[in-house]
Amino acid sequence: MAHIPENIFPIHDRSLSREDRERLLEQKGLCLWFTGLSGSGKSTIALELEKSLYNSGWKSMLLDGDNVRTGLNNNLGFSQEDRKENIRRIAEVNHLMIEAGLIVLNSFVSPTEEIRSLAREIVGEKNFKEVFVNTPLEICEARDVKGLYKKARAGEIKNFTGIDSPFETPEKPFLDLKTEHKTPQECVEEILNALKL
Amino acid sequence: MAHIPENIFPIHDRSLSREDRERLLEQKGLCLWFTGLSGSGKSTIALELEKSLYNSGWKSMLLDGDNVRTGLNNNLGFSQEDRKENIRRIAEVNHLMIEAGLIVLNSFVSPTEEIRSLAREIVGEKNFKEVFVNTPLEICEARDVKGLYKKARAGEIKNFTGIDSPFETPEKPFLDLKTEHKTPQECVEEILNALKL
Repeated sequence: MAHIPENIFPIHDRSLSREDRERLLEQKGLCLWFTGLSGSGKSTIALELEKSLYNSGWKSMLLDGDNVRTGLNNNLGFSQEDRKENIRRIAEVNHLMIEAGLIVLNSFVSPTEEIRSLAREIVGEKNFKEVFVNTPLEICEARDVKGLYKKARAGEIKNFTGIDSPFETPEKPFLDLKTEHKTPQECVEEILNALKL
Repeated sequence: MAHIPENIFPIHDRSLSREDRERLLEQKGLCLWFTGLSGSGKSTIALELEKSLYNSGWKSMLLDGDNVRTGLNNNLGFSQEDRKENIRRIAEVNHLMIEAGLIVLNSFVSPTEEIRSLAREIVGEKNFKEVFVNTPLEICEARDVKGLYKKARAGEIKNFTGIDSPFETPEKPFLDLKTEHKTPQECVEEILNALKL
């Protein structure tokens, strides 16, 4: 038998609810949605945050291109329609994982208000914490970790966010994370403070 | 700060793994896949099992038509192609939830070996526990909880499993659950015993 918190009482006469699952996990389900340019540091920060959460006993799951585009969304391309379906499915997975009581970290460029609103609507306003990883384009392009900006400038990649496709600054993010003069760990501290965790 | 098991040590130098998440949840991620005719008792048993697991401190999530067809798979119909995509996405969600350390209960007719093999392959053989909810067609049809058999017999529903579309008996299920003379709670006990939980 696993650890059972003191406020858990046996259920016999009804179905399990989100609140039950949250009580068992001793936390509230939540979606953290990292949005920002390619190379802005979304995944680096999400990975750091994931470790910090774990080290404090919080149960989380990280969704990013690596585990979503290779699995659930491996039948989607990069057309406008497919990008939208990509985000829709991710948001629906968040919905289910939040029901399960997990803290879900999401690392996706998600460049437009339209696409982020879609996610917000599916996940539910009160569950959805938008973190704008606010790193200037010049810095992202100078880093160019994956060599994508170079290819985009050379015209080898079309519709690349920040180059020939717009990134719409989030209007009212839960957190506007200005990363320029901060370490990833400092960014994580800022998020944890904002979440009061 | 939430409850932290004694065998958890801080992670700084690497990414979180499935094993880390499982350690924090004090359990192994797992997929229980209930297959059987409409009205066989899949969801009734899954709902009972979910409560039993909860009452013993196991962290689970239940996926069924109610929460999947209305969300993640609300853009799928019932063509052969769509049924396959339905199961594919569900299996991919299982994959992610198992990575998160959860015990995932699935209640879907999933009538063919092809479709169950697809799920098994995505979820991974060692994570996939197929439970055949083995209830004779006559009983399912006599119950006809949703009135679907009557409609199928009247020709109002086409390709209804057991009537004019085959249900392929699972060849080597993890558990062949013969429900006819058992209460749902007895079925749950049989599953828990088989899982050694």
